Amino acid sequence: MKIDIDAARLSEELAELARFTHAEPSPEGTAVTRVVFTEDDLRARAWLRGLAAEEGFAIREDAVGNTFIRWVGIEPDLPAVGTGSHIDAIPHAGMYDGTVGVLGGLEAMRALKRSGQRFRRSIELLLLTSEEPTRFGIGCLGSRLLSGTLDPQRADSMNDTVDAESQGTLSDVRNAAGFTGDLASVRLEPRFYHAWLELHIEQGALLEREGLPIGIVTSIAAPAGYRFTISGFGGHAGALLMPDRRDALCAASELILSIERHALAANAASDTSDTVATVGTCGVFPGAVNSVPSRVVLQLDIRDTDPARRESVMQSVRCDYTEIAGRRRVQIEEELVNADAPAQSAPHIVETLDAVCAELGISPKKMVSRAYHDSLFMARIAPIAMIFIPCRGGVSHRPDEHSSPEDIARGTLVLAHALARLAAE
Amino acid sequence: MKIDIDAARLSEELAELARFTHAEPSPEGTAVTRVVFTEDDLRARAWLRGLAAEEGFAIREDAVGNTFIRWVGIEPDLPAVGTGSHIDAIPHAGMYDGTVGVLGGLEAMRALKRSGQRFRRSIELLLLTSEEPTRFGIGCLGSRLLSGTLDPQRADSMNDTVDAESQGTLSDVRNAAGFTGDLASVRLEPRFYHAWLELHIEQGALLEREGLPIGIVTSIAAPAGYRFTISGFGGHAGALLMPDRRDALCAASELILSIERHALAANAASDTSDTVATVGTCGVFPGAVNSVPSRVVLQLDIRDTDPARRESVMQSVRCDYTEIAGRRRVQIEEELVNADAPAQSAPHIVETLDAVCAELGISPKKMVSRAYHDSLFMARIAPIAMIFIPCRGGVSHRPDEHSSPEDIARGTLVLAHALARLAAE
Repeated sequence: MKIDIDAARLSEELAELARFTHAEPSPEGTAVTRVVFTEDDLRARAWLRGLAAEEGFAIREDAVGNTFIRWVGIEPDLPAVGTGSHIDAIPHAGMYDGTVGVLGGLEAMRALKRSGQRFRRSIELLLLTSEEPTRFGIGCLGSRLLSGTLDPQRADSMNDTVDAESQGTLSDVRNAAGFTGDLASVRLEPRFYHAWLELHIEQGALLEREGLPIGIVTSIAAPAGYRFTISGFGGHAGALLMPDRRDALCAASELILSIERHALAANAASDTSDTVATVGTCGVFPGAVNSVPSRVVLQLDIRDTDPARRESVMQSVRCDYTEIAGRRRVQIEEELVNADAPAQSAPHIVETLDAVCAELGISPKKMVSRAYHDSLFMARIAPIAMIFIPCRGGVSHRPDEHSSPEDIARGTLVLAHALARLAAE
Repeated sequence: MKIDIDAARLSEELAELARFTHAEPSPEGTAVTRVVFTEDDLRARAWLRGLAAEEGFAIREDAVGNTFIRWVGIEPDLPAVGTGSHIDAIPHAGMYDGTVGVLGGLEAMRALKRSGQRFRRSIELLLLTSEEPTRFGIGCLGSRLLSGTLDPQRADSMNDTVDAESQGTLSDVRNAAGFTGDLASVRLEPRFYHAWLELHIEQGALLEREGLPIGIVTSIAAPAGYRFTISGFGGHAGALLMPDRRDALCAASELILSIERHALAANAASDTSDTVATVGTCGVFPGAVNSVPSRVVLQLDIRDTDPARRESVMQSVRCDYTEIAGRRRVQIEEELVNADAPAQSAPHIVETLDAVCAELGISPKKMVSRAYHDSLFMARIAPIAMIFIPCRGGVSHRPDEHSSPEDIARGTLVLAHALARLAAE
């Protein structure tokens, strides 16, 4: 079967999608900010539906905005083969994270259609809502709901942290965006998909370092999210003397350094780099230059291929912050936002990808995904695997994130071949 | 001369002024947020002008919104006696900081008028714009411009940090608020005021601890503001491994703790509590839970009665952050936002206050103001002093800030007597 990827069109479409953004231009590359259900996101979704409609693909949207773009197969009642990713982007991010899997998935479907073949199973592109946690504090919102991993009622009451002034919830925001209906209806029945594949940039530098063009993901690391609230005692920056202080930001600084120290220690003890811990936000209250911070809220993202090691790092951090809180006379509260189990790829799909790579003369690298992906949750309702392509310097979530048109086209070609094989099963 | 303060009316007016706020109600006390030139601030100003107009006082506003409320004296060409303070409040602050000096000043003038006396010199209440640095990053905006301490062109181009999205400057914001004209016109001629007095809550606990009802401020400590920008290297929180990180927030945490450590060491070395250092804001970029911080901006407020000791703390901090930057492979840039010299009260006015207290049977405490006040800048163009009243637990810049109606009335009475003596000179 001859499958041709239109690499030029795919590059142009990626560039066009990058224009739906609220980010200021950056000298480092194409800056993209596209927070879920903002005007930029809604315009990008409309544009994507337009591309799908041109091809005559069937389009369905669910109550949380997950968008299903289906090329109906010869036997429409068989479970479909799914592929997809996300188009939302954290503030001031790049143009390839997620988007390569969405537009690459669309191009793979178009290429299969152009090849003149028809397949037993339907092939479906899935645009997943809010893979990034920017707006509601939890990542993979769409795939969590599809897989029944997140309670629909709890989801609907999650607060909008981007437009905090509005005091809106997910329910308010999605309804305003035109995605109405009961969130409970989002969940897919088991065996909805025969197989699921996600094409994604690596967001690490291993493929580039080893000069390999394709990664086959065999497992996805287990991420956890925590929120820490440090409550001290505020006051006037001039008049509240140092011995009387219970400064929440000083306590938070110690906690941040404790987290870093224990993650590094876990790496050293296991002689790996498998534990990563990041405090990515630090909200200071009242947040005035002349006021002693009375409250600080930190968000921690900690991931490991080994959930037990992740938990042991957290235990060490807890020992530290108990001591910090006592010594500094502040309160430190810990809240678990999410803690997910790792996912394993389906051996059968990994073998399919191996066979495709062999057919195309590509040496793939078997690898662990340390980044969070919707496939982590899709794995709960379908056999999955992921295809990684190199990205320059391993840089991601920044304007200088970059994957070459050749690597994107090659990944898309591997995806198309694998979809063809799986849809013929 | 019999001067009667209407304590009940003054309390009611303070409570009424506290209602011009954007703060959410707080169980701890009356929460007030009144950022300069917001709708709350503009409504409060209009209300205050109304109170002044009722008394027949003359009202003038300058190009930055400083508001002059004058009771014209028998010899209108003589330099006036001035008093006043500010009504702007940092986010989630209390209801007494600044406002006691404004409404107390107004009540002092009304009480003098009620007493039936007339004075040679005009007595003028001055509402000073933006004593708090919340919106433009620099405190005492109005009094800096009045005293020629801040270049008008530089002032007009300062960025609005509260509504950062608008990318507006002071020029844009004040014009939108109706304060037009050249900022250079704000500066007062030398000897505009014969004397200046500011009534203020102590914002410290010394008066309360010693059971003294009135403080006479003999000097105001020298404050300085710095901005630190820490630039590291961002990336995906899952994929950017710990050994490759140059996390700006971890570096910032070390800097915050270094500042605290050296301020404490300066206290220990001098056996005083005269050095205070506060990092009150911590902006994290990009500020997403799953993104390694690439840039952090901290604002430092450091004050001392001894400018040399303040500078020596900064030197120690600089040594530390040079080492931190090298070890963590980040850049740390320091920017001086403001560094002001301390101010001394005029002996003549201090003596006048001493005489008033003696007449009223009050034992005052001579003290240093560690908090920043407009009087620091008024001292550059007029002989000044300040009157402090106790505030509960020394708490300020918080909803539970509190001064009793009796203490407020007593401070206002001392102010009125002192204004009378000075206006008769």
